[in-house]
Amino acid sequence: MKIPKGFKATGVQSGIKKEGLDLALICSEAPCVAVGAFTRNRVKAAPVLYSKKVIKEGKARAIVANSGCANACTGKEGLTTAKRMAELAAQLLNISPKEVLIASTGVIGERLPIEKVEQALPKAVKELSAEGFLKAAEAIMTTDTVPKLCWNTLKIEGEQGVILGIAKGAGMISPNLATMLCFIFTDLGLPHKALEQIFRETLAVSFNAITVDGEQSTNDTVFLLANGLKGVITTSGQERFKKALAEVMKDLAFQIVKDAEGATMVVRIRVKGAKSLKEADQVARRVANSLLVKTALFGRDPNWGRIMAALGDSGVPIREERVYLKINGLLVFAKGSSLSNKDELRKSLLGNEEVCLEIDIGRGNREFEMLTCDLSYDYVMINSRYTT
Amino acid sequence: MKIPKGFKATGVQSGIKKEGLDLALICSEAPCVAVGAFTRNRVKAAPVLYSKKVIKEGKARAIVANSGCANACTGKEGLTTAKRMAELAAQLLNISPKEVLIASTGVIGERLPIEKVEQALPKAVKELSAEGFLKAAEAIMTTDTVPKLCWNTLKIEGEQGVILGIAKGAGMISPNLATMLCFIFTDLGLPHKALEQIFRETLAVSFNAITVDGEQSTNDTVFLLANGLKGVITTSGQERFKKALAEVMKDLAFQIVKDAEGATMVVRIRVKGAKSLKEADQVARRVANSLLVKTALFGRDPNWGRIMAALGDSGVPIREERVYLKINGLLVFAKGSSLSNKDELRKSLLGNEEVCLEIDIGRGNREFEMLTCDLSYDYVMINSRYTT
Repeated sequence: MKIPKGFKATGVQSGIKKEGLDLALICSEAPCVAVGAFTRNRVKAAPVLYSKKVIKEGKARAIVANSGCANACTGKEGLTTAKRMAELAAQLLNISPKEVLIASTGVIGERLPIEKVEQALPKAVKELSAEGFLKAAEAIMTTDTVPKLCWNTLKIEGEQGVILGIAKGAGMISPNLATMLCFIFTDLGLPHKALEQIFRETLAVSFNAITVDGEQSTNDTVFLLANGLKGVITTSGQERFKKALAEVMKDLAFQIVKDAEGATMVVRIRVKGAKSLKEADQVARRVANSLLVKTALFGRDPNWGRIMAALGDSGVPIREERVYLKINGLLVFAKGSSLSNKDELRKSLLGNEEVCLEIDIGRGNREFEMLTCDLSYDYVMINSRYTT
Repeated sequence: MKIPKGFKATGVQSGIKKEGLDLALICSEAPCVAVGAFTRNRVKAAPVLYSKKVIKEGKARAIVANSGCANACTGKEGLTTAKRMAELAAQLLNISPKEVLIASTGVIGERLPIEKVEQALPKAVKELSAEGFLKAAEAIMTTDTVPKLCWNTLKIEGEQGVILGIAKGAGMISPNLATMLCFIFTDLGLPHKALEQIFRETLAVSFNAITVDGEQSTNDTVFLLANGLKGVITTSGQERFKKALAEVMKDLAFQIVKDAEGATMVVRIRVKGAKSLKEADQVARRVANSLLVKTALFGRDPNWGRIMAALGDSGVPIREERVYLKINGLLVFAKGSSLSNKDELRKSLLGNEEVCLEIDIGRGNREFEMLTCDLSYDYVMINSRYTT
């Protein structure tokens, strides 16, 4: 693992969850330019409301995040505990509370046991180290089965800069800032405006291009902190930085879908031939969120007619006779009727942990790709037993 | 069972399905005023395209419907077989093909074996009887576990009129003409315009107010045939007719949700305090189609926070602090924070096959009620093995 210079992290057990690490702390020794994105759900968790204010200033140095409790739908008390969490960290790290971002993930509607955070934070501060990112990634997991990390390097004027990200996903994952937590750190530097723009553009093709269950959570948060300790990127270097950042964010997004609750398959949906990006996006999301498509894929059932039904229900005025549908490269529908050899199609699905649906709607030349997964018994099991 | 005068029906086995009845035929001895509604999915099955033309004339006398094959995504051949199905029935019944409505339900993308329809139809015509409606209801079943029928009576100037409906549902059930087949027959008479209006208004609160899985099929069809043999309803009697019709349609809609694929619970969602009907509808549908709400209800898990998250993601600018949420009469969230006793809530869910979610969004005085069901292992099982 490559660690961006000046960043330290850790994850500790505070007891918010019944077992395991549940409190992550990450800190930069130097001030950072910071950008963020949050859920567009109208019901926003207290830490989201709090961090939105902090990120507006464009600066931050630390992130505190807990799993096991979303601190959402918790009223005024929730706002007070969120603020307290940031203040506690600031005090212990000897920085301003205005430089501390916070995030929470877990059950909605339960109060955050702030006394547990209070007790555990001093230990976390003591344990901060450049080697602590795996622990931090573990501490934000909920139903994730593996911690999610990704890093990339970038040469800037002889110096090797690093971009490192951690994320959690699993369920309540959907468009509009895909429902998850993700924190990204770099020792490269960019002006706030440039960083913001690169960040937004990269979000659109990474976390905003995945869905597990069409559910947008109350706590979605992505932060990107750049401390510039390895030098400031000039305008000419920004495209390369964007590419390197996109690799990290797309990889983390893939990891989230791969480890989605109960998923046995990553589904790549490529919509082509759209009149606009919005149109391509609309079609891709409709197919990606179709329960019948997802359950068929779980069963490796070559029931491609369900993809056509979802397409037709996307709100885009597609014409059946113009649609080309390919599954794993196999043309199954074209010119208004079926070309599929169901046995061949079934064979290409069986034993595969990835499938690619290519849908050309024959209306224009814009395209959009998104990732989703299948829907299995385990998704139902995990989500019918979440709080009990 | 009450049968409207002049109508006969039957269901026979044609061999389109591997076993069981799969071809329904219903016929009126007198001409009928006919109205219908169809899927708004852009991908429309051949029988939908065909019947849309017939219904435009406002008249019909017979319905032929098969299960086991949707005759959708079948190109020109599909249109030819659809037309042939209507023509065959017309010939055998000695009526015009313009008086025959058709419908299909089953797997998308497979050709309709018209030769099987050809062989079975003469037998069906011979078997037509006033007692055959149960068989007809059985013949349109796919993954339904029970046939769905409902009837109602209405006194009009001393004569007892009858409204009888049959339906199939199970999966691919969603708004915008909920995804199913439903055929309704009455021996009362109404002018076409009045019948059409009553029909549309009743649709909105019955089949368009249910969802199983948010999936709109390619074959949704509702027909209503009125032969007037028991007399024509005057303007003053129309409200009573509408009420009687609504009872039949709402009951059939309830039966569809009750027998939804894998469902263990009927969920009634009442949204109040909306600024408009559209807004109430939008909120209700978002909650009704939330996988996380549905899986929690399957597990009888008192995880009401997921309802809040779905609410917030509905697109309606709700304010958390104005929301009142009741589950089975128990107030669980109000004034921005939780009031719930999770044990009490769990107890009210356990062993219950019906649950009522009351959501007051505190924005106005419009309301909307819709029905949905939970999401279970069996939904996944049924839909991962559909064609295999």
